[in-house]
Formats: sequence, C-alpha cells, structure tokens
Amino acid sequence: MGKFLPGKLPYEFLKKLVFTRLGVSDERLLVGPSIGEDAAVMEFGDKVLVLATDPITAATKDIGWLSVHINANDVASCGVRPRWFLCTILLPEGSDESMVDQILSQIDRACKELGISVIGGHTEISAGLNRPIIIGFMMGEAPRKRYVRTGGARPGDLIILTKGAGLEGTAVLASELEKELVPSLGRELVERAKRMMYEISVVKDAMVLMDSCEVHALHDPTEGGIASGIWEMALASNVSMEIYANSIPIREETQKICSHLGLNPLNILSSGALLASIKGEEAEKALKALESEGISAAIIGCVKKGKGVWMIKDKERRALSPPPRDEVYEVLESLLSSK
Amino acid sequence: MGKFLPGKLPYEFLKKLVFTRLGVSDERLLVGPSIGEDAAVMEFGDKVLVLATDPITAATKDIGWLSVHINANDVASCGVRPRWFLCTILLPEGSDESMVDQILSQIDRACKELGISVIGGHTEISAGLNRPIIIGFMMGEAPRKRYVRTGGARPGDLIILTKGAGLEGTAVLASELEKELVPSLGRELVERAKRMMYEISVVKDAMVLMDSCEVHALHDPTEGGIASGIWEMALASNVSMEIYANSIPIREETQKICSHLGLNPLNILSSGALLASIKGEEAEKALKALESEGISAAIIGCVKKGKGVWMIKDKERRALSPPPRDEVYEVLESLLSSK
Repeated sequence: MGKFLPGKLPYEFLKKLVFTRLGVSDERLLVGPSIGEDAAVMEFGDKVLVLATDPITAATKDIGWLSVHINANDVASCGVRPRWFLCTILLPEGSDESMVDQILSQIDRACKELGISVIGGHTEISAGLNRPIIIGFMMGEAPRKRYVRTGGARPGDLIILTKGAGLEGTAVLASELEKELVPSLGRELVERAKRMMYEISVVKDAMVLMDSCEVHALHDPTEGGIASGIWEMALASNVSMEIYANSIPIREETQKICSHLGLNPLNILSSGALLASIKGEEAEKALKALESEGISAAIIGCVKKGKGVWMIKDKERRALSPPPRDEVYEVLESLLSSK
Repeated sequence: MGKFLPGKLPYEFLKKLVFTRLGVSDERLLVGPSIGEDAAVMEFGDKVLVLATDPITAATKDIGWLSVHINANDVASCGVRPRWFLCTILLPEGSDESMVDQILSQIDRACKELGISVIGGHTEISAGLNRPIIIGFMMGEAPRKRYVRTGGARPGDLIILTKGAGLEGTAVLASELEKELVPSLGRELVERAKRMMYEISVVKDAMVLMDSCEVHALHDPTEGGIASGIWEMALASNVSMEIYANSIPIREETQKICSHLGLNPLNILSSGALLASIKGEEAEKALKALESEGISAAIIGCVKKGKGVWMIKDKERRALSPPPRDEVYEVLESLLSSK
C-alpha cells in the first residue's frame, strides 16, 4: 500500500476508507463528513449546531492565536458565528510555564477578538514531541435554516473571493524563507507579507455576507489554495464553474513571492480568502457591503449547470484542477532539505 | 520558571494560568473549566449539551478504539449518554493505508459499541511525530436538569466504586512491562491484566446508576488513580469524605502487579472504575442495579460536612492526598530509562 505525504489525505482515500466508517448513523446530522465541507451541522430543536476540529501542527510563535482563528473559520464558513471553543494542548517535554503562559494568552486574546468562550480543554506534557501542538474544537449555533454549506452553490450564482488568493501561504513562505526572499524582494515587502498572517480570519467576511445578501455557499480554502477550494465547492455542489483568471485578486506580495519561487498563487494555502457563491443579482450588493466594512473582494466567476471547473483567460478556456499537493509544502520541503 | 513533567499540569498552575484566560464569559455555561470536572455543560434551550476533549498520546495498538471510549467516559461522567464524536488524527510521516485503515476501523467499532455517530474530523500526516496521536471530542445531550458533575457530592451520600481501583493502570503496566512481570507472576495473570484494558468504558456503569437511583456526583478517575479522583470530587464538592480502606475493590491482577513493582493501587491510572456519590438511602439499590447488569461495585466511603479526605483502616484515620504524579508514569520512566 502507498505511503502518504505530509498534509491532508487524498480525496479518493477519504471517500473509500473514512466516510464509510462513521459509527452509527444519525438522522439529525444535516452535514456530515464529505469532501470540501468545513464543519458538521446538526439539528438541535429549532436550531442547528455547527462543529469543527482542526489542529495547528506547524511550529509557529502564534500557535495559540492561530488555533482559535483557524477553527473559527471552519464554523464561519457555514455562515454561522463561532461561539464556543475547546482545545487540547500537547506540549513537548521540558516545556516551562512561560511557554504555556504565552499559548494561553494568545488563545484568550483571539477568543476576545471574536467574542468566543473557552468552555473546556485538556493540557498535557507529552513525550516525543519537538514542538507544541494544539487541536481546537469550535462550535456555533444558528436558527434552523440559517446556515450554508460548501455544497450549496447554484447555477446563476456569482463567485466572490475576499482579500486575495494565497494569503496564508504568502505569510508562511515569508516567515519560513525570510533569508532567501529578502535579498531579492527587499525587507519591506517580506515584512508586509509576514503580517498577512494576521488577516487569516474570515469570520467578519462571512458574517457581512450573511447579513447583506443571499449566500448559497461559503468555503475557506486552506491546503491546495483557491484552485482546490473552487474545485471542492463545484464538486460538492454538483455544478460547473467558470473562473475569470484576470479577475482573481492577488496581492503584490503574493505575486512577487510566488513568482520568485516559481509557484502558482492559486495553489498555495489560502486561509483568509473566503470563497462565496452568491445569488447572481445580489453579488454587487455583497461587494459593497464588504467594502463598507473594509474588506476587499472581487467577483471571480460564475456557476453553471454541468460538471468541471474552467479557467477563462484571454478567450482561452482550460480545465482547472486542484494541485496534487499544496505548493507551499513542496517548496518548503525541497528548500529546507537542501540546506 | 519550573519545567513540567509528562502528564497533566499541576492544579495550582491550572488555577492561576488556565482558568483565568477563557475568552469572553458566557452565562449559558453551567459547568466550565475547573479542577476535577470531566466535561463542559452548556445550556441549550430546554436541554443541556455536554462536551469533552481528550487525546490519546501513548503508543498503543488500540489507539482508535481507546480514543472513543476515553472521550465517551468524560461525557458519561456527567450522567449523560455520549452521542456524537469528532476527532483529529495526526499521523507520522511514512504512515501507510493499512495503519489509517486500522485506526478508522477501531473508531467505527467503538462508536458502534456505544451507539455513537462520527460527525466530523480531520486527518493529516504531520512531520516530527514518532507515533499516531488522536484527539477526540465527544458530545451528548440531556434534559435541562438531568446531569451531574464531579462537584455535586452532598453530606449523607455514600460513595460507590465500580469494577476495581487501578484498572487501566494494571492493563498499561501488564502491556508495557510484560517481560519483567511474566517470570514472577506467570503468563496467565499478565494476560488477564492486559485484557482489563477492554473494560475501561464507564458508560454503562454511569447509565445504570442514573436510571436506578439518585446520583449526586460521578467522576472517572484517570491520572493519579482513585486517590486523586476521590480528592478531586471532595474538593470540587466542598465536602469531606471518609474512605474505608478495606472496602475498596482491588482485583488480584492489580494487587499482584502493584505489589511486585512497589506501587500503590490507589495511585495508578484508573479509567474504567467509576466513582459515584449516591444519596445514602439509595446506595444498596444502586449496587443491586449494577450487579444485575454484570458490573461489580462496592460502597467505599461516605460524604460528610467539612474539608479533607480521610482514609480509615483498622481504626486508624489518616489524610488521603493525591500522589504528586501518577505512579504508572514514574515506574515506566525509571524502568524504561534504565534499559
């Protein structure tokens, strides 16, 4: 049997081995484990509960802060405000009070930024780790019909992308490859790119959209970038999508760093850039609402009947498919292993 | 600042640095993070939601199965049936399909044993791990007043312990120190001790008690054994407890393995042995109900006004305090490091 590379497991494997082994079935489960869905949605009286879990396994100084925001994004991608957080914190041997103190302060701060309560958790020192790992669980609630899913896009919708493709990946690359990038691109640009990490929350983006227009689907594109995110949304919604290549917002920092490293900005980690499928007639209204809240966004495509995702560029039309693996992982592994 | 040893963090540290950093407060939170509480309880309309998270970080062939049961125990210790499970599975580099397959089969099987649905999760290959780690998140629901907490024991209650002290620790020691134990204690006893791992669920114990008598408090004693469990329950309930040393059920396997290794059976991992504080007049009824379901149990003490936990043995009365650290960890570290 094949061995897996770091990152998410392949779609085919998930379909075959994960989604078929889910204990007893429950008819109150409205959205369960499936490709592209960011969170579970469960019926609870006249409300729904939205639940998600995500780990932060990368060594980063912002691990506590990130854990809250990454998990909050999953719940927000159902159009629902994240409210309650639990987390398990696994610490390497030799951890001291100051490390734990720092992580807990970050969690507290991120929760206060988003109006979230920490309601439970578990912290332990665990042998054999070389860095802290945090696994978060986020929950939110909404009225019975007031949620969306990745698989809700409908023909006639327009697709909006907030902020810019590859936002998270740009920040990760700038932090990890700072020494390689500064000589060619300059310190100022690299510092700006690093700070893009602090824009990874899509909670406000999602809430503004839910309050301002008819949203049919939301998706927070993480691993595999917006190419994977768009592809997952089309697949989950059983529709076709046309994406206008020249309309995709890509920031200068992303463009320059990707160009320098030979990467495709559409194929790198993209938390912070929310994908939304909006009723066509309401897309302009949605853009105005986002803009008035200081969130940049653009219409990048439309939803059609059929299958497949197509990228339109200068009258050329080619199939858009997800990269086999996120290009950030590829470049970090090859550059770090060659050191 | 001091460095921490493997295992749970010290109580004082939790009080000072964890329980004070919990984001925004929420008046719907009925039981939040505090010493000895196994799960969070949150108001949800005319019901309550019970939520818990626990990791399995030890290298064990039953990791998937254990993750479900350990998390189910936390919810059951609120007197509530566990229903919905999410988990994050972190796999070491080089993991192949058969390993993932095995873990997922175990999760599926354990969930079917307990009537639980897997409603979401996350699986990834993560660099720098030497073993799989699973972090579970369990949820259950109950009518508004139909739950208990560790801190609910009342003067006049009798304390029941199911199965036997140190059940989980006995199984862990038998597996990890098999070669050391077999020559002195015999293969048959060690094999029986290893199989005690399959008795670690307290879900049935808790459900039988909730259905048969007036339960005031339940607690699943894990790290630090039943000495810690009893102490935590007394502290959380703001009561005093008297424990009759000769009444504590301790199985032959536990007695012999602990005696051989110089350990106190009350100070080792004890999942599977549920502590219950029951209205005094109903304790005999509770024992009969447990017995009729095939669960052995005994009355091991009583609850009084005041503070402190006292161990009564042959007319002698001494203070019972939790061990500084679980004795299983101590003995494994010293024996494994001397190899």
